[in-house]
Amino acid sequence: MFQTFVSSADPSHGPARLNALRAAMRDASVDGFLVPRADAHQGEYVAARDERLSWLTGFTGSAGFACVLQEKAGVFVDGRYRLQVREQVADVFTPVDWPEVQLGDWVLENLGSGTLGFDPWLHSVEQVEQLTKIFAGKGITLQPVENLIDAVWADQPAAPNAKAFAQAIEFAGEGHAAKRIRLGADIAATSASAAVITLPDSICWLLNIRGADIPKNPVVQAFAILHADGKVALFIDPAKCADVDDHLGADITVHSPEQFVDALTALTGRVRLDKSTAPMAVASVLSAQGTDISFGAEPCALPKARKNAQELAGATEAHLRDGAAVANFLAWFDENSESGITEIDVAQHLEACRTATNQLKDISFDSIVGAGPHGAVIHYRVTHDTSRTLQSGEIMVVDSGGQYVDGTTDITRTLPIGTIGDEEKRAFTLVLKGMINVSQLRWPVGLAGRDIEAFGRRPLWLAGLDFDHGLGHGVGVYLSVHEGPQRLSKVSHVPLEPGMILSNEPGYYKPGQFGIRIENLVVVEQAPSLEGGDDHRQMLRFRTLTYAPIDRRLIVPDMLTLDERDWLNTYHQECYARLSPRVEEKTRAWLSQATQPL
Amino acid sequence: MFQTFVSSADPSHGPARLNALRAAMRDASVDGFLVPRADAHQGEYVAARDERLSWLTGFTGSAGFACVLQEKAGVFVDGRYRLQVREQVADVFTPVDWPEVQLGDWVLENLGSGTLGFDPWLHSVEQVEQLTKIFAGKGITLQPVENLIDAVWADQPAAPNAKAFAQAIEFAGEGHAAKRIRLGADIAATSASAAVITLPDSICWLLNIRGADIPKNPVVQAFAILHADGKVALFIDPAKCADVDDHLGADITVHSPEQFVDALTALTGRVRLDKSTAPMAVASVLSAQGTDISFGAEPCALPKARKNAQELAGATEAHLRDGAAVANFLAWFDENSESGITEIDVAQHLEACRTATNQLKDISFDSIVGAGPHGAVIHYRVTHDTSRTLQSGEIMVVDSGGQYVDGTTDITRTLPIGTIGDEEKRAFTLVLKGMINVSQLRWPVGLAGRDIEAFGRRPLWLAGLDFDHGLGHGVGVYLSVHEGPQRLSKVSHVPLEPGMILSNEPGYYKPGQFGIRIENLVVVEQAPSLEGGDDHRQMLRFRTLTYAPIDRRLIVPDMLTLDERDWLNTYHQECYARLSPRVEEKTRAWLSQATQPL
Repeated sequence: MFQTFVSSADPSHGPARLNALRAAMRDASVDGFLVPRADAHQGEYVAARDERLSWLTGFTGSAGFACVLQEKAGVFVDGRYRLQVREQVADVFTPVDWPEVQLGDWVLENLGSGTLGFDPWLHSVEQVEQLTKIFAGKGITLQPVENLIDAVWADQPAAPNAKAFAQAIEFAGEGHAAKRIRLGADIAATSASAAVITLPDSICWLLNIRGADIPKNPVVQAFAILHADGKVALFIDPAKCADVDDHLGADITVHSPEQFVDALTALTGRVRLDKSTAPMAVASVLSAQGTDISFGAEPCALPKARKNAQELAGATEAHLRDGAAVANFLAWFDENSESGITEIDVAQHLEACRTATNQLKDISFDSIVGAGPHGAVIHYRVTHDTSRTLQSGEIMVVDSGGQYVDGTTDITRTLPIGTIGDEEKRAFTLVLKGMINVSQLRWPVGLAGRDIEAFGRRPLWLAGLDFDHGLGHGVGVYLSVHEGPQRLSKVSHVPLEPGMILSNEPGYYKPGQFGIRIENLVVVEQAPSLEGGDDHRQMLRFRTLTYAPIDRRLIVPDMLTLDERDWLNTYHQECYARLSPRVEEKTRAWLSQATQPL
Repeated sequence: MFQTFVSSADPSHGPARLNALRAAMRDASVDGFLVPRADAHQGEYVAARDERLSWLTGFTGSAGFACVLQEKAGVFVDGRYRLQVREQVADVFTPVDWPEVQLGDWVLENLGSGTLGFDPWLHSVEQVEQLTKIFAGKGITLQPVENLIDAVWADQPAAPNAKAFAQAIEFAGEGHAAKRIRLGADIAATSASAAVITLPDSICWLLNIRGADIPKNPVVQAFAILHADGKVALFIDPAKCADVDDHLGADITVHSPEQFVDALTALTGRVRLDKSTAPMAVASVLSAQGTDISFGAEPCALPKARKNAQELAGATEAHLRDGAAVANFLAWFDENSESGITEIDVAQHLEACRTATNQLKDISFDSIVGAGPHGAVIHYRVTHDTSRTLQSGEIMVVDSGGQYVDGTTDITRTLPIGTIGDEEKRAFTLVLKGMINVSQLRWPVGLAGRDIEAFGRRPLWLAGLDFDHGLGHGVGVYLSVHEGPQRLSKVSHVPLEPGMILSNEPGYYKPGQFGIRIENLVVVEQAPSLEGGDDHRQMLRFRTLTYAPIDRRLIVPDMLTLDERDWLNTYHQECYARLSPRVEEKTRAWLSQATQPL
């Protein structure tokens, strides 16, 4: 099993660890210390050695940070984790409602004046700039220091040492030499001589390699410098590259991570750096020697987001494989949902169905399997302590995905356990209408996620409802399941372009009662010309990647427009056509029934 | 008649005037001079003396500017005016496609290096800052100079001298003392001692006065300084205030415009200034003496946009009065459209219908009456030279509005002349669907125009079509028909709030063939709770202000959803109920027929 159900942290360790940290703070002459969730690569998942926040506090959520002072230790978490943090941390910690309470205000109130230490490798340039601005003239000094958690974490795990492996050209679609030359030319076009790359998925995409340093993310932890001539210096434990030496070739030189700072120091000319992701430490090294830093978007971000034909072919195939596994799971669920199974049983069987493809490399995130009131917890993670037995009359959110060599999947279905009440069905149908409206959309070239995400909400809005997360996130190809810069979100200004893969996942959450989410992955493509559409505008649309039945028993058919019903019936027809050759024999009859027209 | 149909400018004057300007440029030692359309108050309409752009070039559009060099004179116009500018200017001028070609690039290409003169009263702080940034380090110096058009315009009209008059409290809803105290407190809350106000409609709203200095806009041209204690210094020809002395009272002091600069010089403490609207000259005077300028939104902008109960009652009544006049016009049009009438006949009869209310103070803009291909010219202005005889089989865009003491209206209807082809009907129905979708929307508190304007486009997008203007603009109450900061536009970040009046006007334009636009004004209001909508979210919706039939003969009923058809039928039922007591006897039968359910 890739997924575990143990609570990885225990509140009881918190007080002693906090005391040790406070002693280290005194030794380092700082009045406070910041403990972010992030590692030096700003990823969503981190290696065991980088689980500093949960080691210290017990809080295991995927976002948040702590600010430790001598008298108070705040654990800042957003709306998803307000309940969880209170269960996971000892009372020496103070949960703080973030972003309603901002770090700057909290520090000014609780510290007054003094020195706030931070590890410059774990905070981006942008984060440090923002904090510096907030504290300017208010008596708080930001002080880069050694990592004080590492100083007191006696049994801190070693750095991950999984071997990197090559991603075959049939899946990557473009050799790393071509990518390096192309991106190097982009760098030269901005009069820069090199770009520093600190995101593991960017480095893996650029060099067509993968790894296993981070759970759920098939990446290696590394830093890289891409020169304008297309050559790359890669900073990674050389032992991890033993299997990819030939693949990398002569234009990619491998150096140990310890040499990274020296290599930064040796750079000449203008250097491109992404201030939203690069560690402050990198900028400080460059600034200290007077390097001309050109802050700009990470050079791989957009090229990686625009998937090429082979990547899309791979993703399409991965989604059909995954869809068949999900269909097998759904058929099993239907047969067993009222037989006393638990949330953990559901997560285990779901993973088993994916494993049975014999091609599962990992799950793409810890499956979210929440029945009844747990469905309303948007990022619910089931553990032995929380796992509920499924109850008839409840609905269940199942949000999961797989990592395959040809693609990364992410799918959410909401499932009935027995007979479901009208309120849930009406809300489900509204969520479905939003999901369909986005699937059906076409729009003029140039729009960003922010311009169209409201279509996923409108049916809920008209009923006085809404949901508190973005409509969708970018997704990689055998890379991270959360990939930028493309997003379907009110805050996303990046124009959508052909080849970008995104999730389309509206939801509705009634706290303490039930949750609903329906999610397909879609890819942006050119929309073909329409008869009568003689406006000669370039239009884009989504092509759906995810195929798996959407439960018809939760739909109120009269609430769908004819167009929406047509979409659903066609979608289900396609589900049957594409998945029936791939599912288990006993699933086929279930699939046929589940995909009948409304 | 408020509207005239003469071409106010003549290309033949251009060469001589350009020569005179170039001589003045040499005398002033500048290599170029900027001639904006705007006056010192950045309004859309300007007084005759401020028609510098059309006097020089012949171009009469509502937006654009000229950049005159010794060898080349560019006239920068946007997509609405590409054809018009070519007909209106002599060949000594070069039309420039703006904003595709930016002023900075054009100057760098055509001037190389040198000095670019501008009148600092006619350019906002923000405009000058942007230009300064563009030209920094490129050999172009921006040089504030006397206005060189005024220097060579021998028969420049005098400044307008219409008398100001009071806006009764029954329409304003709040006395000017209460407004001044309230906004003064806002200024004090930002530690400022005063705010400089340069927008005529803000000053008129704040002081509950109106005027007739500018065509179509019932405002006085003035500057004002609002002090934190609520007192106001008003800079205006005192003769224009003869009728409002008592209304203004002791806390508003009247000074001649010539005293404005001295008064700026006398300001102490921090001064608030809106950089997007205040003339550069104001900022320069303040900066020169070291005043602490706090750049921030114009203090009246949001309070003016949030109409109070009496303003909304007035606007509601004004729209019914105007709707009845429009219905009378529509009935006449139906009877006469195929009898050889011209666009000018249409504009004249429409104005006559409004005049017949005996309450029309002005039209709120020059009516846009464009038949056939003229309908595709988004801001078409009919003149004796362009007026077309209506042809059977064509459709016609009629976009017009009235200024009444209780409200400002703006309505567009697209009308059939005889029997209309399928293409026009299909496009009309798509535009209508967008208009209805926006009318039906409800949305959570906090969203801006940019978050919802796409709903007005979606039906067109799905057919591969779109239109190249915003979905809607803010509208005042017996003030400007184009009012900020609220807009339904991709670029509008200002959250929509109850009381804001906006237009909802999707369109479709097929160049050289036909145009379609359907426009109602709507007001934002709290949406009542819905049964079953137990999410406890504060939601907003639009209440429609405009009532006048939408031509049913242009609708393809099968293209409407049931919800859309219901909305239209209910709307038409309301049109009949509200307008039938107000229309002429002979219109009533027409109205009954025009508002039958689909």
